[in-house]
Amino acid sequence: MTDDLNTLIQSIPPLDRAAVNRAQERQAQLTKPAGALGDLETLGVRLAGVFGTERPDPRGVAVLVAAGDHGVARAGVSAYPPEVTPAMVANFLADTPHGSGGAAVNAIARSVGARVYVMDAGVNADLPDHPALVRAAVRRGSRDLSVEPAMTVKEVEALILAGAALARQATLDGADILVPGELGIGNTTAAAAITARLLNLDPATVTGRGTGVDDAGLARKVEVIRTALARTPSTDPLTVLAEFGGYEIAAMLGMMLQAAALRRAVILDGFVEGSAALIGVSLAPHLGDYLFPAGVCAETGHAAQLEHLNLRPMFALNLRLGEGTGGVLAAPLLLAAAATLREMRTFAEAGVPGAG
Amino acid sequence: MTDDLNTLIQSIPPLDRAAVNRAQERQAQLTKPAGALGDLETLGVRLAGVFGTERPDPRGVAVLVAAGDHGVARAGVSAYPPEVTPAMVANFLADTPHGSGGAAVNAIARSVGARVYVMDAGVNADLPDHPALVRAAVRRGSRDLSVEPAMTVKEVEALILAGAALARQATLDGADILVPGELGIGNTTAAAAITARLLNLDPATVTGRGTGVDDAGLARKVEVIRTALARTPSTDPLTVLAEFGGYEIAAMLGMMLQAAALRRAVILDGFVEGSAALIGVSLAPHLGDYLFPAGVCAETGHAAQLEHLNLRPMFALNLRLGEGTGGVLAAPLLLAAAATLREMRTFAEAGVPGAG
Repeated sequence: MTDDLNTLIQSIPPLDRAAVNRAQERQAQLTKPAGALGDLETLGVRLAGVFGTERPDPRGVAVLVAAGDHGVARAGVSAYPPEVTPAMVANFLADTPHGSGGAAVNAIARSVGARVYVMDAGVNADLPDHPALVRAAVRRGSRDLSVEPAMTVKEVEALILAGAALARQATLDGADILVPGELGIGNTTAAAAITARLLNLDPATVTGRGTGVDDAGLARKVEVIRTALARTPSTDPLTVLAEFGGYEIAAMLGMMLQAAALRRAVILDGFVEGSAALIGVSLAPHLGDYLFPAGVCAETGHAAQLEHLNLRPMFALNLRLGEGTGGVLAAPLLLAAAATLREMRTFAEAGVPGAG
Repeated sequence: MTDDLNTLIQSIPPLDRAAVNRAQERQAQLTKPAGALGDLETLGVRLAGVFGTERPDPRGVAVLVAAGDHGVARAGVSAYPPEVTPAMVANFLADTPHGSGGAAVNAIARSVGARVYVMDAGVNADLPDHPALVRAAVRRGSRDLSVEPAMTVKEVEALILAGAALARQATLDGADILVPGELGIGNTTAAAAITARLLNLDPATVTGRGTGVDDAGLARKVEVIRTALARTPSTDPLTVLAEFGGYEIAAMLGMMLQAAALRRAVILDGFVEGSAALIGVSLAPHLGDYLFPAGVCAETGHAAQLEHLNLRPMFALNLRLGEGTGGVLAAPLLLAAAATLREMRTFAEAGVPGAG
């Protein structure tokens, strides 16, 4: 491990327990029946621990979309051809009558007031220059995980640090809530392999249809993952990430680690993000305290990830798009949880009688 | 039924089926795998039908909180004394360092950019004058539903029309999405009685703990509802509402009917709102097309209401506060659903290859 990566991992602080305690005391005095705001109360208290105050006031929301291609995509594991990856990067950056970007993540981000960052983490194409495209690719797409390691550990570390650099930039630009997002034809195959290995589960139980493969494609996908898992017995987190890929997963891992190191909240979107989080909590146990899962995505295996992370999602809208769409959609819920804890009056302040 | 109320009910148009069809066609061409936005896609198409365009562009969000007291509150059916109702109305209107209002609904509304309206629908207190308080009370709290009809049908009609007037005002002020909300110690007792009668269910299966009664209180509450149901066999919707109360439920019904008549979307918050919606769809079958449930609230009986209405909630955050809190919290999800349908580019526009 490089010194830079080791320093990043070591710099993630534990939650501020004193702030958590003060937030719990305050929560109990606010003008509502105890527990009546349900999961919002838990979210608010967790945010108090992240931001170190019983009146958390997170401001900007940023979604950081990392795009990368996967050597395995040519093995028939996806409903879409690899050419979709660069075309969708262009879509993220396109001028439209509504503003920058014509993809789902752009529309949702505009709707909730979030800023979108786009990173080439390893797309297999000559991407045209664009002022808003962050270039971090070290290779044009990963190697085929079914025949060889998808990445080298050195490449993994480079992408983690690139993701961290983009997260630092987003916080400098004002983001207190960061949403790592991804794009990459084939990447649910990589995510399923990582999840199967780290949770010690059979690939069939964590492999889903991704963008929509049919039954034959799903069977091929499971077989490809079995072959990849059979290639190596390693359970070392960085080696697992290198073996199964992909560059955008490494970049998202770096975003998560850096956001936590800077005491920012991270919204965890879907299954591919979840695989980065599994690597992350293996490297840095405190990381989980900074993660707020958006929803249970429709991809098989996501629920198992959340159970392992011991995190409770905010909604179940059956999303399975990626791009960070679910994460940015959840941002207003997290902001509202902070707002209730921060801005509600107490029974004493409001002169409201308590429970009889 | 008064002519005014009959006219209101008759003026609710069916959904715009042509817009629904165009929205479904457009949804299938947007740059995402088919169905990958899950429930957001269904919500977007429904909004197209409400707003009559395949590119729905709803703007302002308003939460309209109606407060009313209940004669039954003195029967030990609530964890809180009736004095909480006027104290919380004052809390909704209070000046605070964060802006107007120190209750949960105020904090969440500020967080998502919604405007809060507060109506005295029948509070049992001398409420001090406040420029933002809408006065619509015809009586200081309803009668005790366990011994007599809680309201007269004439009172019910007056409150429905008052709710409708406030909804009209909110749309004139710019709201395209309306969230009826409520406050009233004892009102989950009224809502449970309405729900039991209209869905023909045993009260024990639809009666919950409201703001938090203990086991003995819950047993008392079920018995009070049984007594009320035994008083009258009526299933006529307006009579059911008059028999079991309350004024704020009638006002919310009026808001829903008027919003639908003006082709606006209504977010349905919790169990008490659901009881108004049950009366509403009995009176005006098209009303259900305009209702978008926020979440399954923790109150027993809410899931049965949603099943009857054939509506799918957006989240499950275990809220049970009322005030319209869940509804206003769901507004950004509904706005995002509209944004994806409105602003995403098609595969053709973006030059993205389709599924292979």
